[in-house]
Amino acid sequence: MPDEERKLIERIGGMARRPPSTVVLRGIGDDCAILKLAKRHHLLVTTDLSIENVHFRREWHPPASVAYRCLTRGLSDIAAMGGEPLACFLSLGLPPRLPQRWVDEFLGSFEQLADRLRVPLAGGDISTAAAIVADIVVAGQAPSGKAVLRSGARPGDRIYVTGELGDAQADLEKLYAGRHIRAERASRHFYPQPRLEAGRFLARRRLATAMIDLSDGLSVDLEHICAESNVTATIHATAIPVARSATLEMALHGGDDYELLFTAPRKVRVPNQIAGLKVSEIGMILSKKDGPAGIQILDESGRSRTLRSRGWQHFAKKK
Amino acid sequence: MPDEERKLIERIGGMARRPPSTVVLRGIGDDCAILKLAKRHHLLVTTDLSIENVHFRREWHPPASVAYRCLTRGLSDIAAMGGEPLACFLSLGLPPRLPQRWVDEFLGSFEQLADRLRVPLAGGDISTAAAIVADIVVAGQAPSGKAVLRSGARPGDRIYVTGELGDAQADLEKLYAGRHIRAERASRHFYPQPRLEAGRFLARRRLATAMIDLSDGLSVDLEHICAESNVTATIHATAIPVARSATLEMALHGGDDYELLFTAPRKVRVPNQIAGLKVSEIGMILSKKDGPAGIQILDESGRSRTLRSRGWQHFAKKK
Repeated sequence: MPDEERKLIERIGGMARRPPSTVVLRGIGDDCAILKLAKRHHLLVTTDLSIENVHFRREWHPPASVAYRCLTRGLSDIAAMGGEPLACFLSLGLPPRLPQRWVDEFLGSFEQLADRLRVPLAGGDISTAAAIVADIVVAGQAPSGKAVLRSGARPGDRIYVTGELGDAQADLEKLYAGRHIRAERASRHFYPQPRLEAGRFLARRRLATAMIDLSDGLSVDLEHICAESNVTATIHATAIPVARSATLEMALHGGDDYELLFTAPRKVRVPNQIAGLKVSEIGMILSKKDGPAGIQILDESGRSRTLRSRGWQHFAKKK
Repeated sequence: MPDEERKLIERIGGMARRPPSTVVLRGIGDDCAILKLAKRHHLLVTTDLSIENVHFRREWHPPASVAYRCLTRGLSDIAAMGGEPLACFLSLGLPPRLPQRWVDEFLGSFEQLADRLRVPLAGGDISTAAAIVADIVVAGQAPSGKAVLRSGARPGDRIYVTGELGDAQADLEKLYAGRHIRAERASRHFYPQPRLEAGRFLARRRLATAMIDLSDGLSVDLEHICAESNVTATIHATAIPVARSATLEMALHGGDDYELLFTAPRKVRVPNQIAGLKVSEIGMILSKKDGPAGIQILDESGRSRTLRSRGWQHFAKKK
C-alpha cells in the first residue's frame, strides 16, 4: 500500500474511529459498520455519486465546496423522506497526483458539516482513480410507516416549497458564462444545506402527503411526484419564491437548491415558516382525468401553458 | 437527460422495482430506499469501490466477471460478520462510449448473482464518468450483539480458514505474465463467491470469536485480526489449504479468495466442513506478551520465521 494511501486511511479512520455511540456501535475498522436503529423505525438508505467534470469541476469548485455538495446530496434525500440521518459512508477514488492540500481541505470540510449536523462517518472505501469520484451513502431512520414518499399526493392537495429557488442556477450560469465568482460560504451552489429539520417537522406532524428534495429542479421534481402519485398539477408563476439573484426560469428549472417540495391536504394548515424557512404555497394537485395532460403553469394574467420539465445539467465538458 | 441514460435508469429501475417485499418496503423510485430490519437485530453496512484499471481491466475481465467481483466484495463483508444481506445498492459511473453490450452483460450478471443469493437491488445512482466505476453498498443484519468482529480473538484461540487458498492469485499471476486465460465460471479470480452460509453458521452457533474475509490475502487479513484483537499469532505452513493450482506463497499473500478466516476457543469443536466447505485449522492466537513481535509461520521442520504481510496488488497500469 503506498504511503499516501495509508496516511489517508489513517486520517479517515481517525474521523470515524470515535468512541462508539448508541447509534454507531462499530465504525471503521471491521468488515462492516454496525448500527442500531431505534425500535419501531425503518431504515432509509440513499447513495449519490459526485464525479469530477460531471458533478463538479476542480477549477470552479474549491475542495470544501465539493465536500458540501457531496454530503448535502445524501442528507437532502433523508430530509425529503422526513427522516433522521444516522451515519454516512464515503467511498473516495482519488488521482495519484492530486495535491495533498485538496484532500485535506475536502476531508476537513466534510468533517465540519458532518459534525455540525451530527452525522458520524461510519465507513467507506478508498482507491486510486483517474478522476476524483466520491460516492456518498447515508443511512437514516424514520418511525415505521411515517417516511414521506413521493407517491402520496392526492387530487386537491396543495403544493408547497421551502425557501427560495433559483439561486444555485444563477451562480451556475455565471460559471458557464466564464465569469469569475467567489465560492462564498453563503452561496447555495457552492455550499448547499440539507433541510433536515423542516423535513422531520413535516413528517412528524404528518402534514406532508408527498415530498421530494429539489435537486434536479422544480419542473423535474414536481413531475417525479406526479408520476409516482399518478396525478397532475397546476402551479402559479407569481407564487414561486424566486430568489433575488434568479429569474423565474432559473427557479423553475434550476437544480441544486435542495429545498423541499411537498404536498398537503387542502384543509391542513401549513405554517408560513418551518425551521426558519419561508414556506410558499405554489399550486394544486389535480386528478389526471380532470386535469390537462401535463403540469400547467398559470401566469399573472391567468394564461396557462404546459410546464416542460428541463433536467439538471451535468457539468460535462464540451468535447 | 440523454436517451441512453434514461434507458439505463429504466433498465435498473426494472431490476429494482419488484413488488415490495417484507424487507425492502420501497426500492428505486423515491429519495431513499426503505428497509425493515428484523426485531432485535443490528444493521450492517459495507461499501466497496470497483474502478477500471485499478480493481479490474476491461481487456482481462469480461463484464460478467466485473459484476461478480463487485457484488461479491460487498456480500463477503456481510459474510465475515456472520450477517444476513438484506439489499444492495449500486452506484455506477459509465463512460459515454462504453458499448451497450458491456452494460447489458454487466447488469445481467449482477442481477443473476443477486437473485441467486436473494439480495434485492434496492437503489443506487448513475452518472457518466471517464472510466468505469462501480460502488457496491450492501445493507445486512445480525441479531443484536451476535455480529462477529475482528476484535474478539483471544490468546489460546485456534485459527481456521474455509476452503482453499491461492487460486485467485494463481490466475492473476498468469494475467500479469501476459498469458491468455479464459474467464471460466469455475475460476475464483473471475467469479468469486461470498461465503454467506458458512459465516452465518459460525455466528449463529457462536463458534467464531473473530472473523474476517480473505480479500487482501491471509497475511494481511490475519494481521487485521491481530491488530484489532491486540494479540499475535503463529500459523503452520503445512496446515495451509493451498489450492491445487497455487503455491504456498500465493495462498499466504494472494487476495481475492473471499474465504473466511476465523478464530475459535481451543475447546470448541469446529466442524471439518461447513456449508459444503472444508474447514482447516491453521494456527493459534498468542498473547503479545508471550509471543514474538510479529505473526510467525512454522515450516515443516519446525523452523519459525516472521510472516511479513504483503498487501493485495491493485491492477494499476504501469505508467
